[in-house]
Amino acid sequence: MTQNTREADVTAALLIIGNEILSGRTKDANLPFLAEKLNEVGIRLREARVVPDLEGEIIDAVNALRARYTYVFTTGGIGPTHDDITAECIAKAFGVALERNAEAVARLQAHYKTDQINEARLRMANIPAGGILIDNPVSKAPGFQIGNVFVLAGVPMIMQGMVENLLPRLRGGARMLARTVSCGLPEGTLAEGLEAVQKRFPEIEIGSYPYLRNKEYGVSLVLHGTDEAMLEQATEAVASLVRDLGGEPSVTVGYS
Amino acid sequence: MTQNTREADVTAALLIIGNEILSGRTKDANLPFLAEKLNEVGIRLREARVVPDLEGEIIDAVNALRARYTYVFTTGGIGPTHDDITAECIAKAFGVALERNAEAVARLQAHYKTDQINEARLRMANIPAGGILIDNPVSKAPGFQIGNVFVLAGVPMIMQGMVENLLPRLRGGARMLARTVSCGLPEGTLAEGLEAVQKRFPEIEIGSYPYLRNKEYGVSLVLHGTDEAMLEQATEAVASLVRDLGGEPSVTVGYS
Repeated sequence: MTQNTREADVTAALLIIGNEILSGRTKDANLPFLAEKLNEVGIRLREARVVPDLEGEIIDAVNALRARYTYVFTTGGIGPTHDDITAECIAKAFGVALERNAEAVARLQAHYKTDQINEARLRMANIPAGGILIDNPVSKAPGFQIGNVFVLAGVPMIMQGMVENLLPRLRGGARMLARTVSCGLPEGTLAEGLEAVQKRFPEIEIGSYPYLRNKEYGVSLVLHGTDEAMLEQATEAVASLVRDLGGEPSVTVGYS
Repeated sequence: MTQNTREADVTAALLIIGNEILSGRTKDANLPFLAEKLNEVGIRLREARVVPDLEGEIIDAVNALRARYTYVFTTGGIGPTHDDITAECIAKAFGVALERNAEAVARLQAHYKTDQINEARLRMANIPAGGILIDNPVSKAPGFQIGNVFVLAGVPMIMQGMVENLLPRLRGGARMLARTVSCGLPEGTLAEGLEAVQKRFPEIEIGSYPYLRNKEYGVSLVLHGTDEAMLEQATEAVASLVRDLGGEPSVTVGYS
């Protein structure tokens, strides 16, 4: 892509918290979901980090990311067990107290039978001072927002419910639109012409992603931009290049 | 988990380079593969970052990670097109020249027909000075190692072939062993007892991962450690806890 990310862009980072991702046991599914949801409201995911369940690592990453991006989302570590330390770390990152939140307690009390409410479950009502709850439509224990940081569950179904609930709080910019030109030509044949198209359209990002299907190599040329007319022009220029080189371009709105 | 990561651990970080991951278009498959391969030789993946195809971001991330971990692996951005800028960024991160590597040129010449060799494809032979090639068994264009940084392709099949080829270069530590105790009890019921087991076995990391299967909640309790006898003891303590709370523990070697 080009170096054309604008200062005015509304940006986000995702901090994935959990040993289970770094051990390879669990495959993260939250990044692609969040990327697409944010793009729908004109916010670009610009960085992601995966850190273990270690206090220092979490605090350092949260502070680095929240200083740099419009929004930060964290996933994981907000359950009732000893390895769930995210809320505590976020409080420390912001230099505020971790408090038992009355509204969160009420939600847990409404969800669990009286004999199920124990100290471990009540830990899920510990929220950094000043935090605003994020509804959890699945298992009730809420996420929370503090400053520009949104703290979400790691279990994808719960994370997704929380994202739907918090989207109205976000202020987005121009939505990034996508087109894909696929063809059976190899990247190395297209590269020179593609670079020329990229130089003609500096506001459009052009990415080249080779694939192997049925033992045939091909490439998906993905174009991104916020100006639809310019995006269409650049897409036609890429399709034209493919035809000139003897290929058969297949153009898709979005990704293919 | 506990804060028991030892200084003597052999550690690694993964830097995933590519807009296609951050847009949600492409789901990364390299992290879980690398995590498991590294663990087989006693190296722990401790952090991962995803950055866009922007020079400054790549250089900063490489320099931050290589100072901190025993090994750094990068994926993506080593093809022939204009958006493939990884080799150039690595050279800048190390403050060395980017040179056309004669051995890499020879490999490309052996792979491609004479009329297919063009300047774009030859860019794939540009390697930072001092870099050692990593064989690419699939499409020949090599990866490379410089210092403690290993630069790999992003396409999973090619990345995996490169990893198999570079593993003998790595010096590992003690291999991390895993056991999983699964049961139908909710996390909140187990939390207090689980924390007590964690305190009894500070050298063992215990993670708690809830799941929802056939509308029934359950939890996988994953134990990690390098001392097999101690790991077995801790696993039995967790299984015992589950039985004491009226659950039926199912114990697996590795993950379940």
